[in-house]
Amino acid sequence: VTDLYWPGDTRAGDLMTSRSLVAALVRVELAWHAVLVDAGIAPKADLPAEAELTALSDSELRQLGADAEAGGNPVIPLLAVLRAKLESSAPEAARWLHRGLTSQDALDTALMLQLRDVLDGIQRELRNQVRELSTLADQHRGTLAAGRTLTQHAVPVTFGLTVASWLSGVLDVADDLDLLRDSLPVQAGGAAGTLAAVTELVRDRQLDPARGALELTAELAARLRLRPSQPWHSNRRPITRIADALVAGCDTWGWIANDVLLRARPEFGELTEGGAGRGGSSTMPHKQNPILSVLIRRAALTAPALAATLHAAAAAAVDQRPDGGWHAEWQPLRTLARNAVTAASQTTELLSHLEVHPDRMRRIAEEAAGDLLAESEAIRQLTGGSMITDPAHYLGATDLIIDASLQRANLALAGSHP
Amino acid sequence: VTDLYWPGDTRAGDLMTSRSLVAALVRVELAWHAVLVDAGIAPKADLPAEAELTALSDSELRQLGADAEAGGNPVIPLLAVLRAKLESSAPEAARWLHRGLTSQDALDTALMLQLRDVLDGIQRELRNQVRELSTLADQHRGTLAAGRTLTQHAVPVTFGLTVASWLSGVLDVADDLDLLRDSLPVQAGGAAGTLAAVTELVRDRQLDPARGALELTAELAARLRLRPSQPWHSNRRPITRIADALVAGCDTWGWIANDVLLRARPEFGELTEGGAGRGGSSTMPHKQNPILSVLIRRAALTAPALAATLHAAAAAAVDQRPDGGWHAEWQPLRTLARNAVTAASQTTELLSHLEVHPDRMRRIAEEAAGDLLAESEAIRQLTGGSMITDPAHYLGATDLIIDASLQRANLALAGSHP
Amino acid sequence: VTDLYWPGDTRAGDLMTSRSLVAALVRVELAWHAVLVDAGIAPKADLPAEAELTALSDSELRQLGADAEAGGNPVIPLLAVLRAKLESSAPEAARWLHRGLTSQDALDTALMLQLRDVLDGIQRELRNQVRELSTLADQHRGTLAAGRTLTQHAVPVTFGLTVASWLSGVLDVADDLDLLRDSLPVQAGGAAGTLAAVTELVRDRQLDPARGALELTAELAARLRLRPSQPWHSNRRPITRIADALVAGCDTWGWIANDVLLRARPEFGELTEGGAGRGGSSTMPHKQNPILSVLIRRAALTAPALAATLHAAAAAAVDQRPDGGWHAEWQPLRTLARNAVTAASQTTELLSHLEVHPDRMRRIAEEAAGDLLAESEAIRQLTGGSMITDPAHYLGATDLIIDASLQRANLALAGSHP
Amino acid sequence: VTDLYWPGDTRAGDLMTSRSLVAALVRVELAWHAVLVDAGIAPKADLPAEAELTALSDSELRQLGADAEAGGNPVIPLLAVLRAKLESSAPEAARWLHRGLTSQDALDTALMLQLRDVLDGIQRELRNQVRELSTLADQHRGTLAAGRTLTQHAVPVTFGLTVASWLSGVLDVADDLDLLRDSLPVQAGGAAGTLAAVTELVRDRQLDPARGALELTAELAARLRLRPSQPWHSNRRPITRIADALVAGCDTWGWIANDVLLRARPEFGELTEGGAGRGGSSTMPHKQNPILSVLIRRAALTAPALAATLHAAAAAAVDQRPDGGWHAEWQPLRTLARNAVTAASQTTELLSHLEVHPDRMRRIAEEAAGDLLAESEAIRQLTGGSMITDPAHYLGATDLIIDASLQRANLALAGSHP
Repeated sequence: VTDLYWPGDTRAGDLMTSRSLVAALVRVELAWHAVLVDAGIAPKADLPAEAELTALSDSELRQLGADAEAGGNPVIPLLAVLRAKLESSAPEAARWLHRGLTSQDALDTALMLQLRDVLDGIQRELRNQVRELSTLADQHRGTLAAGRTLTQHAVPVTFGLTVASWLSGVLDVADDLDLLRDSLPVQAGGAAGTLAAVTELVRDRQLDPARGALELTAELAARLRLRPSQPWHSNRRPITRIADALVAGCDTWGWIANDVLLRARPEFGELTEGGAGRGGSSTMPHKQNPILSVLIRRAALTAPALAATLHAAAAAAVDQRPDGGWHAEWQPLRTLARNAVTAASQTTELLSHLEVHPDRMRRIAEEAAGDLLAESEAIRQLTGGSMITDPAHYLGATDLIIDASLQRANLALAGSHP
Repeated sequence: VTDLYWPGDTRAGDLMTSRSLVAALVRVELAWHAVLVDAGIAPKADLPAEAELTALSDSELRQLGADAEAGGNPVIPLLAVLRAKLESSAPEAARWLHRGLTSQDALDTALMLQLRDVLDGIQRELRNQVRELSTLADQHRGTLAAGRTLTQHAVPVTFGLTVASWLSGVLDVADDLDLLRDSLPVQAGGAAGTLAAVTELVRDRQLDPARGALELTAELAARLRLRPSQPWHSNRRPITRIADALVAGCDTWGWIANDVLLRARPEFGELTEGGAGRGGSSTMPHKQNPILSVLIRRAALTAPALAATLHAAAAAAVDQRPDGGWHAEWQPLRTLARNAVTAASQTTELLSHLEVHPDRMRRIAEEAAGDLLAESEAIRQLTGGSMITDPAHYLGATDLIIDASLQRANLALAGSHP
Repeated sequence: VTDLYWPGDTRAGDLMTSRSLVAALVRVELAWHAVLVDAGIAPKADLPAEAELTALSDSELRQLGADAEAGGNPVIPLLAVLRAKLESSAPEAARWLHRGLTSQDALDTALMLQLRDVLDGIQRELRNQVRELSTLADQHRGTLAAGRTLTQHAVPVTFGLTVASWLSGVLDVADDLDLLRDSLPVQAGGAAGTLAAVTELVRDRQLDPARGALELTAELAARLRLRPSQPWHSNRRPITRIADALVAGCDTWGWIANDVLLRARPEFGELTEGGAGRGGSSTMPHKQNPILSVLIRRAALTAPALAATLHAAAAAAVDQRPDGGWHAEWQPLRTLARNAVTAASQTTELLSHLEVHPDRMRRIAEEAAGDLLAESEAIRQLTGGSMITDPAHYLGATDLIIDASLQRANLALAGSHP
Repeated sequence: VTDLYWPGDTRAGDLMTSRSLVAALVRVELAWHAVLVDAGIAPKADLPAEAELTALSDSELRQLGADAEAGGNPVIPLLAVLRAKLESSAPEAARWLHRGLTSQDALDTALMLQLRDVLDGIQRELRNQVRELSTLADQHRGTLAAGRTLTQHAVPVTFGLTVASWLSGVLDVADDLDLLRDSLPVQAGGAAGTLAAVTELVRDRQLDPARGALELTAELAARLRLRPSQPWHSNRRPITRIADALVAGCDTWGWIANDVLLRARPEFGELTEGGAGRGGSSTMPHKQNPILSVLIRRAALTAPALAATLHAAAAAAVDQRPDGGWHAEWQPLRTLARNAVTAASQTTELLSHLEVHPDRMRRIAEEAAGDLLAESEAIRQLTGGSMITDPAHYLGATDLIIDASLQRANLALAGSHP
């Protein structure tokens, strides 16, 4: 899974790879089989370990990829592979596998498992970012710098304020992900969202087989630690909510990267991307490019369109299960998720090695003092107060605003998932 | 504000028009002036009514539009207009207007006021949709129909199940909007988010002028019934969260429209867009096009890119206030908001006049019984149960799933804002 | 048509306004009526001047906007208005108006007329940009500057090279528009693209009425100076080609604006947006923001999604005429076109007033000489040549590359439409 | 390179894979080395075959992927790999490899080589599509069907007309690709587009070393059969033009798929996706889903956003070489290209196995005769002609329009690349 077209992609490891999709699908099918067994519907079976079923050779995986087109999704050929694997050791399990489900049940649920890992990975990065940013904000609460608006010098700020502002952006992302994390829904509706097949399977065992069928889907959710849910085959908000949160993360990391890219320019010299062995050029031996920021910015430039695709796919829903809208989701979701994880990880590294040059910030601010204090002079003319000549004396509520971000950060870190 | 390029736009009335933007900006400036007066900073003034200040002639408005380019936003020329209006009657107010704020404070806050009206308008439509859908779902819980997946007949469903599924989609939209509605933040940071000017204004009156400055911004929020907030000049999540919710609304309405467009085709004949005087053609006298659905679908096709633009703008943030990212927000936000309101209103009308043809649904289902019951036969071969020959006997948990949606709808209606 | 949400929009004047759409529609309908009269099909009529039919009062226009929803487009109610206007003076014309056409024929053709004006307007701006850039490139071919890649100093360049690069981008845009300008197709297919009604109208007058019908559509094209074409009701490439060219224009202007925004920062001081009375702030009296560049950049941030919407609409085609895909085109096309015209005009103004500071460019380059000459030293170690110590001596083919752009510019200006 | 998230991706084979990117990069570097040798600049060397240099083991490729992040692109670590491979057998070649180029030169040029293969692959599919469609259009020029607009029955058409309309869409795509195919530009500008290093390399051998440098880049273009070009490091129109053409292809194939998906519904029964072994379900044994159309539609839903990303990346250009805009291109370009190739191939297969049911088309048309002839009756009332009672007699210029498409197809096939 080397992707030379997206340097840094290795940071996303096996999150949402084809292999990990197979693993998630196997996990869902085994969980459902266990539910059927527990309910006395399917006979007990001596199944091989999950890892054994999951372990496809390269050529098996390739074949799966080739076969996935015929039915439009990888579930159908994977079931054939699994049944073949079970045929000799557990023929009854082979027969009962997937019974009652439709391929969209397995795939949507597997994606939720994969996305949970993605969200957890990003939350880990966010917590580290919150820690780094809290330290930086506090450390540089007094580091005078020129405030810039629409590219021009405005009024004085401190670098701590900029960091506190990034911090509040990162905390917003974490808040959104927190909300999502525990509401990822199971998908289990059967062929057309009626649970008809499951109801038939339950019929002899329950006075109210329909209710029994619903209970089995709740059982599946519990085994996978997902939220029980009505079928959402054509209601794709669970997918777009995740996409919205991922793109919002990329927006925020991109904004941080923009600031670093600007202030790491030699004409500014206010920041340097630290870390060793990065940013080299193929022809210019002196070059030290702020390459993490470049790559983070790249992610921010591409994420909005990926999330938009997921909305477009949702808006194309029709029937009990859609004719392309569903199929359009997987690739952009995978790409958006991996890119977000990569950008999150790069941002953590960027922040943890960021070199700040307070002297340079101060020098620029002092040289620009005339412009930076123009507003204060206008206020003075209004109020008749005394003239301010030192930019460091015109910082308003900067400190309190930094404090508010730090406080919010502390609360978030205290309450965060382990 | 006639827009021949977006038929139905009149439904959005004066939401997010240039005129209503002027009104919102005036409201923000007057609220801030009142805060300054209450705090003893600005002298009391005998101001004209808000409506009087807001009432620009057509040519004044045109001039404002022309003048807005010079500073890049409409706040600067509007302040000149307001100061001119106040000069004779309330010269002190003219002088104190906007003091301490920057144009982004006024404009972001005014947009929040405008967007609150938009969200309220959509919530009203959603509540009506929830009512209509609840009635329809209950009414048609037994209306047999062919379930369709990937365009082909799958297993039997009822039309009530389809409606219940739409209903859960609509409730998801309402949930998202509810969360947003009460968290719209005020923007008040001054030139570069430090509140330096406000702090100077407060200096003589407070032991802790910075804290005093923050209190004034909380006071502004309270007057406008917005959430107090740290400055978010470069952290645009408040904007993208709204965009995400609006596009999700359009996704859902578009999905409903897709189903209606399909099933209103003469080859289906299962649904008819009711209502009178709609759907005519310029050349075919017999035509009765499902035009509301066509126009709703149109909104769903265009909304994802508008929301993506707001993310792209957010990701372009840099400095204390950005150099184009901010300016890129207003037009797509306006368009997305008005289109969403229009689509919401059209959907309510569509649902309230929707004509359902249960006989036709049943006939299609019965003619397709062989296909619709193929799964049940496969299950029978597995379990040895009895053969099902009537599609109406293979509906699984359909009724319970409808019940769950209706229950959620009742809770939502009971708890909804007045 | 004041749009406070898009400062500068007044530059687009009446291009693609609702009023100019009415005018274009009237022009199409009158041209078609004249074709019918010339062919001896419709009786001669004493029609009022086009301007008279076009001149709707504000309230008539508003009514048209309200009525457009019922049929999904403005053609149907406009025909009613026109027939009412003709009823007394030219009742036969009222009867024959639009006969043989469908509303999509009128609207698509009218949009082509409107878009031709848009393309012409942009071409005028492009020619002016080519002139300004040619002058600037030549003037600054020797203006030494630091070459920058991935934000860091790379090797020396001249400002003339940067300008020549912009120039080649602008010429690419002009090339694309040239190709489009003379291939805008008429739309005339009747209700479902068969010209059945027209064929019936022609039947008594022609041995081969179908060929006669096609000839009438060619006649319509000739009268409107459009390209004769088969019906393209569901084949939307004529629309997406225009969108692709418009967004490419915005890309290029946005790139120029990015360079100006960067180099106009006080830390660079290499460029200044000239012109008077621009760039002011609502609170900082000293501020001189590069506001044209800010607004151009804004257009570049929003254009890609608009063009994508037109592709999404094209991809939603189905049937003889689509159920929403077509309706989704008008608003984003209008917005993209007006934004492109505005950005084109702003770019011309930006370039014609751009203030270049060669001393500052040279100073930065000289201070960075060590870095800028690192590559030359690596080459020297390979070839054993003499050491270069002056950045101005390591400019390679800069002059020849500028010459190539200038030559291409001269050819383009010589061959350009008057 | 199995992608379970995009079933059918195997159709794109090794087009734009990480491995084929390595191959293309090696090809560019070797071509440039040969240019340097031919010019007498680099010493002759006994190089291993290109295939040998290209053949990386899995673990080497993985390492390359991991190392690509440090410099932000894969060229830098690939050069290290190549130099290591050459070190013993051709140490001089190792030393001279890449001299004068920058990594963007190598990568942009390699992408052009890869994209040429993509365009060629698509053109092959398009030619096959043109042949299939020509046959179908001619075969079904008399196959009566109901014309449908805005989902409702309009006037009669023939299925041949629908096919001819698809055909003209496919020919438009082919025209656009033809224009692009022979204009793909080489990229060779050195560190910042000045060719400074190349000029130094040439200095001792040429009176006019700058001209000599330009000639070497033309030589490189000739060797790779690309168009000689000025450097376009920051002018990304060559990339966006390709993206625009690819998305237009997906639009057209998506439109065809939409028509098939609709008319293959059991309620229509007018078309069937032929071919064997496709369209199965994981739970419903009878299911025969039109899966190629589903997957083609999926591509059309996702392509617009990918092309938009390339415009957004182009619009983010700044400096001599951009800080993220460039890096953002590769992944979406790869995805768009592979998806387009896959959809093109699927469309060819779809068309070559499409089963048409003329009886069913005719039956629907005849049952709808009243509606389909309503327009003709309105025309009759105007002209006094005779009443039409058979839909087949109200087909207007259908035959001539089909002829025009077929003629254009013949010309295209006659003139097409071998």
